[in-house]
Amino acid sequence: MNIPDKVINRLTLYHYILEDYNENENISSTKIAELLDIDNSQVRKDIKYLNNTGKCRVGYNVQKLKTAIENELGFKKQRDAFIIGAGNLGSALVKYDSFKNYGLQIQAMFDNDTKKIGTEINNKKVFNISELPELSKNLKVNIAILTVPREYAKETAKFLVNSGIKYIWNFTPCILDVPKNVKVWNENLIGSFLQFINKDEM
Amino acid sequence: MNIPDKVINRLTLYHYILEDYNENENISSTKIAELLDIDNSQVRKDIKYLNNTGKCRVGYNVQKLKTAIENELGFKKQRDAFIIGAGNLGSALVKYDSFKNYGLQIQAMFDNDTKKIGTEINNKKVFNISELPELSKNLKVNIAILTVPREYAKETAKFLVNSGIKYIWNFTPCILDVPKNVKVWNENLIGSFLQFINKDEM
Repeated sequence: MNIPDKVINRLTLYHYILEDYNENENISSTKIAELLDIDNSQVRKDIKYLNNTGKCRVGYNVQKLKTAIENELGFKKQRDAFIIGAGNLGSALVKYDSFKNYGLQIQAMFDNDTKKIGTEINNKKVFNISELPELSKNLKVNIAILTVPREYAKETAKFLVNSGIKYIWNFTPCILDVPKNVKVWNENLIGSFLQFINKDEM
Repeated sequence: MNIPDKVINRLTLYHYILEDYNENENISSTKIAELLDIDNSQVRKDIKYLNNTGKCRVGYNVQKLKTAIENELGFKKQRDAFIIGAGNLGSALVKYDSFKNYGLQIQAMFDNDTKKIGTEINNKKVFNISELPELSKNLKVNIAILTVPREYAKETAKFLVNSGIKYIWNFTPCILDVPKNVKVWNENLIGSFLQFINKDEM
């Protein structure tokens, strides 16, 4: 797929909006633009990346536009992932049921804290991190969501790489040093906040 | 400030990297580029947005580059915020001590669950949401971090707006309808994940 990052991001937001409408309603690009405080022309341009958008005289058919976004961004394709770290953030993410609707299925959690190992959070079992290599192989999971404290981030990432993990969604404020064949996506909350406040100096 | 969003994002990541070095060391743009798997020229271009970067023959002085990023992005300027929703995500964010290092100070949490009201999470008190208008005024807090369940997002946002909140950092998968003078930043985790996996189709 060849859709720019910013467009992927916005298409997901359009999908959030559509969730609030009935499927047989129509919605105009103007309405979407207004809700997101962006340009109408931007919305129309983004939607041009999609097929069968249900475009009609009064806008877009909600169901068709939703399906078009889902097809293009692959929401219906299931991707299995592990959460590493059963702390607050890990627990919040495993309870974030919206992930499932967008194709992200959490299969298990891992920690090294014996008080957490064996417990369940939102019906997902917390395993000893030492069991990860085998479970990753058996369940064919190669995506890890890293939520450990900063000071353990690097060594944990090394362990994940050695266990065959190929994609690390990194929620720690630490840059990981991984081989070229492993992809890291830094979920940079601080950067996100700074972008927000710098839009409009408070 | 006139730094593009993507540059702000990357500069924050460079700062994360510098945290792992001694302040009197030097670091090359090549090393930074390698750790983030991006182009060296990109790193040098981003750093050109800064003043007094400690550029020398062998790269950049770590302390000077760190300070330059901090000054430009305003890490040292304290911004006070409330967290709305004392659930898993709210609790995770209030425990995310890194925020403080980047100028974001959580002053209090709010919920409508009587079991949570009056408790403390990471030394921050959970108040009844009904107390927000007064506390917002008294503490001069106009930033809210919204972590309530999707189904309460819209009504809570309306309440925040009526209480004088001017900036909403929205962690819910719901688009809020707010007046023009209120800024919303959608923390779009789903969009973020989809960008990640679409980089390299799994």
